[in-house]
Amino acid sequence: MIERKRSHAAVITRSGPIDELFAAAARRPELVSFAAGAPDPALLPVESIAGLAAAALDRHGRAALQYGLTGGLPALQELSRKLLSERGIDCATGDIHIATGASGALHNICLATLDRGDVVLVETPTHGPAVTLFRSHGATVIGVECDESGVLPEALDDAIRRHLPAFVYLMPTFHNPTGRTMSAERRARTAEVIRRHRMLAIEDDVYVELRYRGAEVPALTSFVPEFCAYLTSLSKCVAPALRIGITTMPQPLLRDVLVLKQGIDMQTSSLTQALAAEFLGGPERAAHRQRLVEHYAAKLDRLAGALGEHLGPDFRWTVPDGGLFVWVEGPPDFDAGAVLPAALDHGVAYLPGSHFYADGGADRGNTLRLSFSAVPIGDIDRGVAALARVCRP
Amino acid sequence: MIERKRSHAAVITRSGPIDELFAAAARRPELVSFAAGAPDPALLPVESIAGLAAAALDRHGRAALQYGLTGGLPALQELSRKLLSERGIDCATGDIHIATGASGALHNICLATLDRGDVVLVETPTHGPAVTLFRSHGATVIGVECDESGVLPEALDDAIRRHLPAFVYLMPTFHNPTGRTMSAERRARTAEVIRRHRMLAIEDDVYVELRYRGAEVPALTSFVPEFCAYLTSLSKCVAPALRIGITTMPQPLLRDVLVLKQGIDMQTSSLTQALAAEFLGGPERAAHRQRLVEHYAAKLDRLAGALGEHLGPDFRWTVPDGGLFVWVEGPPDFDAGAVLPAALDHGVAYLPGSHFYADGGADRGNTLRLSFSAVPIGDIDRGVAALARVCRP
Repeated sequence: MIERKRSHAAVITRSGPIDELFAAAARRPELVSFAAGAPDPALLPVESIAGLAAAALDRHGRAALQYGLTGGLPALQELSRKLLSERGIDCATGDIHIATGASGALHNICLATLDRGDVVLVETPTHGPAVTLFRSHGATVIGVECDESGVLPEALDDAIRRHLPAFVYLMPTFHNPTGRTMSAERRARTAEVIRRHRMLAIEDDVYVELRYRGAEVPALTSFVPEFCAYLTSLSKCVAPALRIGITTMPQPLLRDVLVLKQGIDMQTSSLTQALAAEFLGGPERAAHRQRLVEHYAAKLDRLAGALGEHLGPDFRWTVPDGGLFVWVEGPPDFDAGAVLPAALDHGVAYLPGSHFYADGGADRGNTLRLSFSAVPIGDIDRGVAALARVCRP
Repeated sequence: MIERKRSHAAVITRSGPIDELFAAAARRPELVSFAAGAPDPALLPVESIAGLAAAALDRHGRAALQYGLTGGLPALQELSRKLLSERGIDCATGDIHIATGASGALHNICLATLDRGDVVLVETPTHGPAVTLFRSHGATVIGVECDESGVLPEALDDAIRRHLPAFVYLMPTFHNPTGRTMSAERRARTAEVIRRHRMLAIEDDVYVELRYRGAEVPALTSFVPEFCAYLTSLSKCVAPALRIGITTMPQPLLRDVLVLKQGIDMQTSSLTQALAAEFLGGPERAAHRQRLVEHYAAKLDRLAGALGEHLGPDFRWTVPDGGLFVWVEGPPDFDAGAVLPAALDHGVAYLPGSHFYADGGADRGNTLRLSFSAVPIGDIDRGVAALARVCRP
């Protein structure tokens, strides 16, 4: 009788290449891994946390250790409201929900909205684990055509008409995996499509604080708040271990999400919420962000320089305004997946681009994603040189 | 297009009486609330947490703030293995998974095992939120007959034959809501039934450390580990805000659970896991447990005394060997749900027993649950006196 859920078997059995890459990286500390998207350990505020914990316990007392409200710790909800208003999103404190990471929020929304056989529209390419998640909830995932500014509004309009999706999942800012950012004009046109169809759009905005150049663009949600669920997180700009996701969404959806949350994990840790509130409301935040931006911008410059130096003229790559990812496109006959074992032998890891396509990316085998966040800056050149060796056989 | 998941609508719209009770309690600090099951705030180790955080960061460094392994922080997995072996469960460290609370583990197991229309067997009565959870995953929940020692093995055998359930959910120790504990002999016979049917059994064991009298009984899982998922938590014996659930289960199920966990919340907070490891491995643990046991035992004694003094001879109640709940049964014509508004008027809250029956408990309206954990000991007599007034109209 101990048997796997029938409907999940297909998803669960595909463990995928990421685990293997991580396992390989863990076994070989000399490997230059552009595969993982974790923050640079050197930037985690390890010196501050004990102090923040003490301050949080001073401020909230036993409430920081007790069960809490499903919606979130009120102090953190209020600070989050202010954070979102900096991004152009105006909402009430009661419209904010503190989730267990942005991934926790996304899972919860899936649980609230997806019925088996529903369609979810995503960008082409898109965040791979999101596709796995949507499929694990029984959805059919369909990619919508994009250009260097993100999703094409006409293509989105057409796909919505054709597929009547449950929702559209978008990452307009410092997109994972391509690094691109949707312009304000493109956001406005995309918002029009969303409004016209009264379509739920999920805006995944976890990299927004990591801008290295260019002007800030208001969140897509600010253009059409009545139909957007906005997800952001403190994992990239403070620490993943807090597991703090910050989200706002239309009230009817939020109510369902909160009821379901009681059965998922009851509430997000009151303790890490109280810690997060001390950080967001405290004096360190601005300086810490500045440190992150300078540090990652320097790595991106080094990576872009190394790509220019080592990779052949038949390769192209993005140099994003922010975020943690560079997207590389080789000549049509280049196969990033086929070359990966040789790359690992040469001491460099990356994720093949096909991993990021809802349709499997069979015709996009010539792409790959480089994540520079956790690679020590001094290793970048060596890693790219190794990559170049296997890319020019 | 923003619409509620069709299959969840029935579950989501029943917000239930608990939220209203909690809301009422929050508005009226003078209310004696036997309704909530949260730990006594006075027992939360608020003085220790900042020190534990500092020690955890000393020991684990940046790893305590970074993404971690899906299975859990290895140090906490190893301490958890030792904890479970104290309860008669022998397993390898790799068989331990650290979940986001025991509720997080239960949700994850549901996601891994339940298909729409599956049957889940539960005790009669049982933990109400678990029933809601199972239903939200599309299951039909059926209660199995119990006596004062827990589930009746013959009734369980019969129900398994009849309903071919996906799993059986049991709380053998200090059962919520009745407080009863399954004897070792009953566990052995229940384990036989489970083994004979190769049935997955979930043992929910979150109160086990709160034993006030009587000898410890090995976990049901120790009798039949190959078919049991064992869930325990640090919410009752350390702090709910850690959101630390500790679980072991058969490897095939564990593998599915870990793959799904990546889509639920990626991993449980490395920081609260590191804190929990400092607590479990540190010198405070034994004294803290002793303090909890003495404090709650005194409250239970006070409650039992007050019930004897105030309640009429046609009421019966349990005096459990541990845990946080007393189960009260009135005469057949007593209606705990109908009387609740009057009880609130008199300044006392409780949960009507019908809330704990999978079939709605229409014929068990004469029962109610008293949770004594968070009621100040000096308020217990006043609360029971108020209860008695509405129970003897």
